Amino acid sequence: MKNIFVIGAGRSASSLIKYLLDNSEIEKWNVTVGDVSIDLVEQKTANHPNSRAIYFDINNNEQREKEIKRADIIISMLPAFMHLNVAKDCVKFKKPLATASYVSKEMMELDAEAKSAGVILMNEIGLDPGIDHASAMKVIDHVHAQGGELTSFKSYCGGLVAPESNDNPWGYKFSWNPRNVILAGQGTAQYIENGKYKYIPYNRLFTQINTIEVEGIGMMDGYANRDSLSYRKFYNIEKIPTMLRGTLRMPGYCKGWNVFVKLGLTDDSYQIEASDSLTYNQFLEAFLPVGNQSVKEKLIAFMGDEMDAETLSKIEWLGLFTDTKIVLKNATPAQIIQDLLEVKWKLNEHDIDMILMQHQFEYVLNGQSKKIISSLTVKGEDQTYTAMAKTVGLPLAITAKLILQGKISLKGVVIPTHKEIYDPLLAELETCGIKFEEKFF
Amino acid sequence: MKNIFVIGAGRSASSLIKYLLDNSEIEKWNVTVGDVSIDLVEQKTANHPNSRAIYFDINNNEQREKEIKRADIIISMLPAFMHLNVAKDCVKFKKPLATASYVSKEMMELDAEAKSAGVILMNEIGLDPGIDHASAMKVIDHVHAQGGELTSFKSYCGGLVAPESNDNPWGYKFSWNPRNVILAGQGTAQYIENGKYKYIPYNRLFTQINTIEVEGIGMMDGYANRDSLSYRKFYNIEKIPTMLRGTLRMPGYCKGWNVFVKLGLTDDSYQIEASDSLTYNQFLEAFLPVGNQSVKEKLIAFMGDEMDAETLSKIEWLGLFTDTKIVLKNATPAQIIQDLLEVKWKLNEHDIDMILMQHQFEYVLNGQSKKIISSLTVKGEDQTYTAMAKTVGLPLAITAKLILQGKISLKGVVIPTHKEIYDPLLAELETCGIKFEEKFF
Repeated sequence: MKNIFVIGAGRSASSLIKYLLDNSEIEKWNVTVGDVSIDLVEQKTANHPNSRAIYFDINNNEQREKEIKRADIIISMLPAFMHLNVAKDCVKFKKPLATASYVSKEMMELDAEAKSAGVILMNEIGLDPGIDHASAMKVIDHVHAQGGELTSFKSYCGGLVAPESNDNPWGYKFSWNPRNVILAGQGTAQYIENGKYKYIPYNRLFTQINTIEVEGIGMMDGYANRDSLSYRKFYNIEKIPTMLRGTLRMPGYCKGWNVFVKLGLTDDSYQIEASDSLTYNQFLEAFLPVGNQSVKEKLIAFMGDEMDAETLSKIEWLGLFTDTKIVLKNATPAQIIQDLLEVKWKLNEHDIDMILMQHQFEYVLNGQSKKIISSLTVKGEDQTYTAMAKTVGLPLAITAKLILQGKISLKGVVIPTHKEIYDPLLAELETCGIKFEEKFF
Repeated sequence: MKNIFVIGAGRSASSLIKYLLDNSEIEKWNVTVGDVSIDLVEQKTANHPNSRAIYFDINNNEQREKEIKRADIIISMLPAFMHLNVAKDCVKFKKPLATASYVSKEMMELDAEAKSAGVILMNEIGLDPGIDHASAMKVIDHVHAQGGELTSFKSYCGGLVAPESNDNPWGYKFSWNPRNVILAGQGTAQYIENGKYKYIPYNRLFTQINTIEVEGIGMMDGYANRDSLSYRKFYNIEKIPTMLRGTLRMPGYCKGWNVFVKLGLTDDSYQIEASDSLTYNQFLEAFLPVGNQSVKEKLIAFMGDEMDAETLSKIEWLGLFTDTKIVLKNATPAQIIQDLLEVKWKLNEHDIDMILMQHQFEYVLNGQSKKIISSLTVKGEDQTYTAMAKTVGLPLAITAKLILQGKISLKGVVIPTHKEIYDPLLAELETCGIKFEEKFF
């Protein structure tokens, strides 16, 4: 029997743990799941004979070392900043590690040591980052193998509510960390277009959007992610003239969100004194120029051409013109908006979520311009096995299996841009219903 | 003889050191000036018989303690974050301290200890903060003493170029730290108007301006400072319905600066790869939407209604549409703009600078609405005795004298909102040509 140690049993670990337990008999695995909430762990392991549920505190050095030592692979679902001590122990005890987080500077510094210890530290093996790397590299390597040259690569991804559960004017509900949605895009988006670097500051990020056609859904909004440039190196397309990574939202979402950005409602850097004494209407008014009109009229005047009936209905639906009192005390504007949206954009009991991803490749082959559009749509099954949990957890689980089976020879800090990983990973994901559709032009 | 120890002999210390040396005979002072640049010190002390020029390193604990021990008062011209060890030594050796910096959290923590040691730690005793506190409090205390109730207090200040030296379309040259001008206003401006808190995020700070009439100059732009709220407590006007502090600029400056903000050129959070390979025209283009027009045409289209001929001429005059190469390598947009403006907005040899301050008070006295406008204009003498150096240095020097003469009884962390300080300070500033003109309505 091999021992798998999963750290963290939160919402996004459900599909991961289910896959590991479902395969534990045939693969001869013992699956230990540890979390500071033993309830969460027991919910997910459900007394499965090959499971072991433990209370686990990442800051207890003795326990951490002991559990890592007895495992054959460690899968960390912790937030990125908490991986480091786990990664160090993995190198020390020569145990492979898998995480869905971006490679941090500190993680990268373990690369040489991990290589000389013969250990793989597998990172960015969830959805985005994760499936995006694997699926993009499969096409990029294929184009290069044919002798083609990539001229443009645009890639969009969105964690959304499925159309059948979409019953609000924003076309959005939370299927992952709400805070990340509220603060999304703060800073400056950087990408390259026709060989020229382009920069879009936050103040106009949601106005300079692309329209992306997604089969079965229609036209969608895409806004640029902060960093599209650093991926050129990992994808072996350092000289590509156009490269953009973006986020997908339902049409009109960006126009609505732009109202918040322009008003300043997503600022998380200062607290509003006694915010619980304000109504939402007064809160909105505090960001508008003084005048004798109603708050709604002032907002319409303030937004000018950027306001239309649909956008206004989005603001109205949130109750921002009402006399309902704000709950949070001395909160930042971003916290107040998050608190409101967590109620309004809640994924309800029978709602299902949806993941969309689309890669657009343009390349020249034998003097001819060609295009490939590669698209993925995944819907959740229910509130537990959401599309988000599946697309984050299954790549982790499958890659952990490949590592335990000795099918991956890479060592050191690795992301899934290698054929050795993406070929078997994408093949098995297809059997789980996570399948890209490719169109050639 | 009493010993005064001045730490820091930079640009803004010239008027301070001159005042101290000019008064050293009659006041029986020995003035020690220390800096890591002994050249700067010797330039300023110029072998004056009552001066002592020393190389001084703030991080040399032994030297710092020795010099503070032998002094009767310490005047620190260091940047705010470097005051702390000096302040601690001042408390330890029971020596008064004077600085022109904002009271930091760490400085405030020394308050109780300084009080029980019987030591004054005098802060915010320059121009802004400094003269603004003193001059505002004189009026506020007067209104309160009459039984009046303040309903509105707006206060503006600007460090500018004098009209006779104003020869560029921006009406601005640097008379102090350029970096502070480039990054000014980042965050969210907070103030109160008619009893309601108001917030203006950076993205529209330079569009939501006030127009202020300044005698002898005309109409000027005023944009809101980050923090107008915390002063209510220090000024004893905690329930005032309207309070705003702002920055003065020549008319049209804010419309010009708004172009930079909207483009994203004042962002200091990321570096532009190989920025020295770009021309200014290409730099500008990187922030504009893609299109076939010239960069100038694209900028005009991008700004829409916010662009006019005067604003365009400001951008043009800076050379932002030219093929001149950027000097700095891998620089942030803010660094690139600062580097350009430091050349274009240089105060030339025969230029003189100017300080403007205006307080607008509204109050109710015996049922009648009243108004006072209190204004200050100070011009520099030359490149050494600038208006900035005078208005920062003289309040420090005069207050140091008052402390040495035993005329100030306050102990602990103090700012010049007390009659005991502002009365003699403002009286002597008048004799130096720093005089507020008051108008009553």
